Amino acid sequence: MALIDNLKWRHAVKAYQPEKKVSEENIEKILEAVRLAPTSSGLQPFRVVVVKDQQLKEQMVAGALNPEVMRDCSHVLVFAAWESYSDEKIDTVYDYHTKERDLPQGRFGSYTDQLKKLYASQSAQQHFEHAARQSYIALGLAMAQAAELKVDSTPAEGFSPEKVDDILGLRALGLKSVTLLYLGYRDEKNDWLSSMKKVRIPMEELIIKK
Amino acid sequence: MALIDNLKWRHAVKAYQPEKKVSEENIEKILEAVRLAPTSSGLQPFRVVVVKDQQLKEQMVAGALNPEVMRDCSHVLVFAAWESYSDEKIDTVYDYHTKERDLPQGRFGSYTDQLKKLYASQSAQQHFEHAARQSYIALGLAMAQAAELKVDSTPAEGFSPEKVDDILGLRALGLKSVTLLYLGYRDEKNDWLSSMKKVRIPMEELIIKK
Repeated sequence: MALIDNLKWRHAVKAYQPEKKVSEENIEKILEAVRLAPTSSGLQPFRVVVVKDQQLKEQMVAGALNPEVMRDCSHVLVFAAWESYSDEKIDTVYDYHTKERDLPQGRFGSYTDQLKKLYASQSAQQHFEHAARQSYIALGLAMAQAAELKVDSTPAEGFSPEKVDDILGLRALGLKSVTLLYLGYRDEKNDWLSSMKKVRIPMEELIIKK
Repeated sequence: MALIDNLKWRHAVKAYQPEKKVSEENIEKILEAVRLAPTSSGLQPFRVVVVKDQQLKEQMVAGALNPEVMRDCSHVLVFAAWESYSDEKIDTVYDYHTKERDLPQGRFGSYTDQLKKLYASQSAQQHFEHAARQSYIALGLAMAQAAELKVDSTPAEGFSPEKVDDILGLRALGLKSVTLLYLGYRDEKNDWLSSMKKVRIPMEELIIKK
């Protein structure tokens, strides 16, 4: 029950030890869990910006709900979703899959035709929402991987996406930031949540059996 | 590196052995990972319907992209998000947290006031999209937990949410289905994806370092 134990261990840390940094080795493992995250049709329609530069973090705190948490953590992962899908993006992914699998070019042609037709019938806002959802799968797995390494984390939606997009130049890459994940080591004395019981609604409320 | 190995092991299975069922014990562990999934402000704004009844599955396949996969799997988890947020729902969650933590009633009052104000400024569609994203965190952790137990899974967005909502009576519960997760054991011979290399874009494409 490794995952369940790790999920019980973690919580959204509210205060970090600013001097204690996460090793590059551990950051790489967390990013590998992000990379392996399953996504719809395998499109991986998001990118992750890793910010460890303190000056950049200081800029990004403008508009954040808990600026001191962002400021004091070791690294910020910025999950940024594709602002829209396109035939070209789909082809790029599937050409890569075909090549990596040593398959004849066009092996997935009828599937990508279906995909392109589906996305052509949707708005850019629908594309973005769909891509954003996929990034939350990776966000969850990043938290699980961090917990496995006993690295603390805090998922954060309380920030200004527009400012972060500006600061990181995401618009030029066709990306919009969706959520942040702070990584670091908890400051147990100042983290009010550290000593509190983890609360989740009971199984019989969450689950409906048929 | 337990999680990373489990993520490498899994893939979206395309054919199941219909006679091989997942044990209740394993289903409970997968649901416990869902229950422990972190969510925005701890609201857990989704429910999961566990469908093992074959007749119900036969009804739900109408409109599904891969009907035989749904039909042959052991259990279907239906992730269904709150269709909107409300002051009452927020209070219910926080009253429960306060009680479970033996804190004075109203301990989180200023925070929930903020939350209520935020959500009051948003449309029901924004609420639903936000809730749907949270359910994808749980979806990812369910897949990771299944993989840890060597239970196969297939996430599936290719289905008719309206039909599934009807069949399961979700509208009356204020829920809308978002994604499915099929669980079971792969039929290696008929699962065309089983023998293929897992492909993900390279780290240097996915990650931007600052």
